[in-house]
Amino acid sequence: MFEKKHEMIRKLARDFAEKEIAPFAQEIDQTGEYPEELRQKILKCKFHAITIPVKYGGCGGDYRSAAIVTEEIARKCAASVTQIMPNSLSGSPLMLFGNESQKQKYLRGMAEGTMIGAFGITEPGAGSDTASITTTAVKDGDHYILNGRKCFITNGPICDFITVFAKTDTKAKGVSGISAFIVESSWEGFSRGKIEDKLGIRGSKTCDIVFENVRVPAENLLGKEGQGFKICMATLDSGRITVASQGLGIAQGALDEAVKFTKERIQFGKPISKLQNTQFEIADMATQVQCARLLVYDAAYKKDSGQSYTKEAAMAKYFAGECCNDIAYRSLQFHGGYGFMKDYNIERIYRDARIVSIYEGTSEIQKLVISGMVLDK
Amino acid sequence: MFEKKHEMIRKLARDFAEKEIAPFAQEIDQTGEYPEELRQKILKCKFHAITIPVKYGGCGGDYRSAAIVTEEIARKCAASVTQIMPNSLSGSPLMLFGNESQKQKYLRGMAEGTMIGAFGITEPGAGSDTASITTTAVKDGDHYILNGRKCFITNGPICDFITVFAKTDTKAKGVSGISAFIVESSWEGFSRGKIEDKLGIRGSKTCDIVFENVRVPAENLLGKEGQGFKICMATLDSGRITVASQGLGIAQGALDEAVKFTKERIQFGKPISKLQNTQFEIADMATQVQCARLLVYDAAYKKDSGQSYTKEAAMAKYFAGECCNDIAYRSLQFHGGYGFMKDYNIERIYRDARIVSIYEGTSEIQKLVISGMVLDK
Amino acid sequence: MFEKKHEMIRKLARDFAEKEIAPFAQEIDQTGEYPEELRQKILKCKFHAITIPVKYGGCGGDYRSAAIVTEEIARKCAASVTQIMPNSLSGSPLMLFGNESQKQKYLRGMAEGTMIGAFGITEPGAGSDTASITTTAVKDGDHYILNGRKCFITNGPICDFITVFAKTDTKAKGVSGISAFIVESSWEGFSRGKIEDKLGIRGSKTCDIVFENVRVPAENLLGKEGQGFKICMATLDSGRITVASQGLGIAQGALDEAVKFTKERIQFGKPISKLQNTQFEIADMATQVQCARLLVYDAAYKKDSGQSYTKEAAMAKYFAGECCNDIAYRSLQFHGGYGFMKDYNIERIYRDARIVSIYEGTSEIQKLVISGMVLDK
Amino acid sequence: MFEKKHEMIRKLARDFAEKEIAPFAQEIDQTGEYPEELRQKILKCKFHAITIPVKYGGCGGDYRSAAIVTEEIARKCAASVTQIMPNSLSGSPLMLFGNESQKQKYLRGMAEGTMIGAFGITEPGAGSDTASITTTAVKDGDHYILNGRKCFITNGPICDFITVFAKTDTKAKGVSGISAFIVESSWEGFSRGKIEDKLGIRGSKTCDIVFENVRVPAENLLGKEGQGFKICMATLDSGRITVASQGLGIAQGALDEAVKFTKERIQFGKPISKLQNTQFEIADMATQVQCARLLVYDAAYKKDSGQSYTKEAAMAKYFAGECCNDIAYRSLQFHGGYGFMKDYNIERIYRDARIVSIYEGTSEIQKLVISGMVLDK
Repeated sequence: MFEKKHEMIRKLARDFAEKEIAPFAQEIDQTGEYPEELRQKILKCKFHAITIPVKYGGCGGDYRSAAIVTEEIARKCAASVTQIMPNSLSGSPLMLFGNESQKQKYLRGMAEGTMIGAFGITEPGAGSDTASITTTAVKDGDHYILNGRKCFITNGPICDFITVFAKTDTKAKGVSGISAFIVESSWEGFSRGKIEDKLGIRGSKTCDIVFENVRVPAENLLGKEGQGFKICMATLDSGRITVASQGLGIAQGALDEAVKFTKERIQFGKPISKLQNTQFEIADMATQVQCARLLVYDAAYKKDSGQSYTKEAAMAKYFAGECCNDIAYRSLQFHGGYGFMKDYNIERIYRDARIVSIYEGTSEIQKLVISGMVLDK
Repeated sequence: MFEKKHEMIRKLARDFAEKEIAPFAQEIDQTGEYPEELRQKILKCKFHAITIPVKYGGCGGDYRSAAIVTEEIARKCAASVTQIMPNSLSGSPLMLFGNESQKQKYLRGMAEGTMIGAFGITEPGAGSDTASITTTAVKDGDHYILNGRKCFITNGPICDFITVFAKTDTKAKGVSGISAFIVESSWEGFSRGKIEDKLGIRGSKTCDIVFENVRVPAENLLGKEGQGFKICMATLDSGRITVASQGLGIAQGALDEAVKFTKERIQFGKPISKLQNTQFEIADMATQVQCARLLVYDAAYKKDSGQSYTKEAAMAKYFAGECCNDIAYRSLQFHGGYGFMKDYNIERIYRDARIVSIYEGTSEIQKLVISGMVLDK
Repeated sequence: MFEKKHEMIRKLARDFAEKEIAPFAQEIDQTGEYPEELRQKILKCKFHAITIPVKYGGCGGDYRSAAIVTEEIARKCAASVTQIMPNSLSGSPLMLFGNESQKQKYLRGMAEGTMIGAFGITEPGAGSDTASITTTAVKDGDHYILNGRKCFITNGPICDFITVFAKTDTKAKGVSGISAFIVESSWEGFSRGKIEDKLGIRGSKTCDIVFENVRVPAENLLGKEGQGFKICMATLDSGRITVASQGLGIAQGALDEAVKFTKERIQFGKPISKLQNTQFEIADMATQVQCARLLVYDAAYKKDSGQSYTKEAAMAKYFAGECCNDIAYRSLQFHGGYGFMKDYNIERIYRDARIVSIYEGTSEIQKLVISGMVLDK
Repeated sequence: MFEKKHEMIRKLARDFAEKEIAPFAQEIDQTGEYPEELRQKILKCKFHAITIPVKYGGCGGDYRSAAIVTEEIARKCAASVTQIMPNSLSGSPLMLFGNESQKQKYLRGMAEGTMIGAFGITEPGAGSDTASITTTAVKDGDHYILNGRKCFITNGPICDFITVFAKTDTKAKGVSGISAFIVESSWEGFSRGKIEDKLGIRGSKTCDIVFENVRVPAENLLGKEGQGFKICMATLDSGRITVASQGLGIAQGALDEAVKFTKERIQFGKPISKLQNTQFEIADMATQVQCARLLVYDAAYKKDSGQSYTKEAAMAKYFAGECCNDIAYRSLQFHGGYGFMKDYNIERIYRDARIVSIYEGTSEIQKLVISGMVLDK
């Protein structure tokens, strides 16, 4: 599943996560601010641009590499994964459907670290149900007039542009009238809602984005009119591998904390790792994490080798999303009262884990995707 | 299981929780401060003194009544349960083992709302393993000299006195040399650690308590020398019913939120409560909550009627502790992205739930208690 | 929840189950034949007629008593519960909707042990979906002409009569055209399919019943025309308490085997009951069984006291049905290789348990009932 | 993970399982007899000798190939896996530790289908606890005198020889005095117990083997004196991959039945596969099966490529063993009453699955192996 280069990338990412990111993980969570210096280091390592082609300033790496980097970073700090979003949600729409000039501008911008992108599909009334979005884009000469509100936008408060999905044909049934646009934050009518106060991944910033008569040049239409749903699904398909990798990293990180704590914590005259219940729990947790790992890299491998991977990515996202929550719960339990205190990493990990089974397609949506493929084949 | 009076108490407590407590639940969580006005209202209703005998200023109620009040309060605000601790951890040692003058002073003090008590058994190196506490109390004339550190003390930062467990006989094996003392916070050598920054129940304050050569008058010995472990276990036995009630209330509160949200949230053209998966999940959640409820009140009833209830209380604590976490997880999942935001109650409930399977005996300790009684009978 | 008489009934039933039934449990399973002598003893104790009014030869007992007897019998031999079916499926339709002469004939017949009844709703194409039954009863003077096939009929091969649900109005929508009839097995056109070869409860006999132009006298219409669905639901409502009691008994029986085996089985120099994992598992299993128990008797108590109990019965059936399978699985696991052999009770218990979450309303149907009541209140 | 040849082997094995084995699966279960004609076909295809070197008459294949064949056969008939035991338990001790003449005689015998082997470690008093075996082998000139009883011996009733583990040094501590011997069934003092009546895999025959003063020639010592435990562990290590493959096949087979049944079964006017609960369950089941699959082939790949695979094999065995039971339970549940009848494959699959988490190291033993490696690394 892995080649030599993947081992090297893992070593690199792991060292970086341990030495550069881990020391800041608690602070990032508590302040909600991402240290600029650390951000620059990530950019310098190009962890954010693994999958962006060399032509546009990226590494031209494969999805296994991106997954590896995501896992290793999330293992130490789940919120830091937001820093490498160009590999997935913010970069994918451009990589998959952008034309040359769009790529040169926006993809290169992200690769070079001068631009931060975001991805805007969810609306207050349209979460799992994409077809019901109400944001509209009405053609007006060589522009589209964009109106609507997108919510839960990761990097919303700091993005320079966002891929927005809007209805260009409001009479079309279901998802067929949706189109995608690249919208810059400096344009008139673009505004941001309050920064959300979140349970976890507090080192990433989230807000609503509101569009009031934003004039979007027609050249910023991504793909063709009506292709929006296709673009969205394709982006989410590959995005699932990233989120699954994040879940895997969180799960592994939680397991790491459990192993460390139970070997150090003395009760009844010996480390609690010597208790049979601890051993059996750890064994089950490690097996779950390994399942998540194999699912993630199997999906990434299939994508890299040009095979269909929709089912595999959905399985990875679903399993890793649930698994990281379960592992975090059990790891925190081993910590007893300490686990409830913010002095211990596991308290943060427990909160961070909670988003993974929700965003970029809830576990329920993944199950629909999977069962569709299993039952209808 | 219930009598007429219990229905009345439930109505009273439910109304109070809905009208008086619920409006402050989010604020209490976010500020970590408990509104004095609300505290006074609770005192006025005597919810904090249900089980304290009338003779000492309490209501002289039974454990079912206390459990009912705890459930209803926790259903709206788990942290508020700390306000009624005299019913359990802070009051039980005195009610069970206090002599007349101790009761008149401390129990009455709590019942009248002029004193806040705390309970100190856990130490940094002694959680589940009570025998390994290192706090010592050395007889010195008509005083004991107390030295040691207790941690995770609920109400520690605001307590006027604390029941402390210390070794009076350091050579005795296991738990036989432990004694209990009532120690006032104004005495020299008593100091408090920093207020803990916690995952949940942030409306209650927790800290370490440090004793440096605190001179405790011999009259403040609770029970007899060497009875400490017995006092501790008896207190925890009945305390488990309270914590289980809290878990039950949290679970019911989380279920309430799920029912409310799924009936309001429209996706795919209808409330998500119309989806079969929602219905099946809700059914399972409601059944779990009902199990917790029956376990709690069965244990309380057995205590009230003078039957052995150790196993029943441990089962209630274990089940309710795990159940409230599970229900909160699933309720949050229904909320999708909203569940991750602090604007919604479920975000707080999810964090509050996490302590229930940990404090006053972890789930693991409960399982030892239960299996001991099932296997050795 | 219990009165003095219930304790006495439990003692009686437990002693009987241990002394009279247990010794035959394995043989009953292996031969598929129920010993006539044992059947007579059960009849003599009137365990089969607990809930039948004294007026018709029964005990006039309450549902808690019936549940107690069911639990204790199932604890030793789940298949023996078929012998006391008049308390539920075969007796309930008559008790609830029979007229005086129907009761005097059929209910008394069962109470006196001269008649065996059965209950026929399920058809090959209509399991959970009652509305789609295709059996018809066409009025022809003072008779109805009955045609159709009912399947999975417990006691089908030995029944003297069966309560059959058939459409008297095939044009009516949904369930509104269904009526119930008491049909005797001696009547022309009544025939039985092959005896089913089942996974478990092999001591009970099951087969299809086929009706070909059976002439049913109009006086054998139960209740009124069109009341069939109501009769069916009311019967299943109370029947759920019985099946839940059976599940509870099976679960307790499986736990008994686990406790017994783990205390006797020596590995690593000590009984495996001394291993922490065993203790934790036993504690969880015992807690689950206690939940099932409280749910069962809460539902029975509510029925006995005239309260609504539909939700409670569905919860009891759902939880006990799943629980007994889980407990049986884990108990068998403790037995290791021995558990896989028919020499040990747990092998039979494991198979018997499997029906409980299926018959008289699958777990899925119970969840629909529960969620209907939780969400629509 | 797979090469071209593996795809070919899978196609071959799948076709064979569907066309040759599946039609007999129910009959094999019901009669407990394995059709000789079918056995000959398996031998002809050499599915039983995949991992035996070409030199001794086998295919010289790798473990992935053996796992593939095992999965595909178990998918249709778990009991048939017993026919290919030379790939694992009966062949491994010889392949790993046999000398040339032992291999030429016994390994070749199995490869050519003229000999059936068995593996004897478990004793009535020594299951998971290998160190406590009491079978002894006392040196007597150029023979060993073997005494003891081995139980749960797969193929015991039909084996021509068995690898027996016995204490050659009864004073040695723990497992250090154990040695392994190849013992032929025709030798004096070798006798077989009654054929066990089992819950599942009834197409394989199991019995005790008793040794009363059996004279074993010293040349039939496998490896060296005292190497018994090492031989046993190495055999079980690789055997776990086979059992895990069997569990995987059973799980996939159970999922197949669920997909098939839910697409055919009409309730409420449509196939139950159209119900959301069915879809979500199927999705989760498919994901679990995929986890089992990835664990199995990851372990096999690691073995094939000379990497350490003890942890991976234990994870695969543990997960697949539990998973196949869970999937079988849920698949049977979809079948409703039909699932409880022996007419449907799922009834058999449900029983067959039960052994997988027990034999060749229970789930508990796997967890000890896994946690040992996770915690002590």
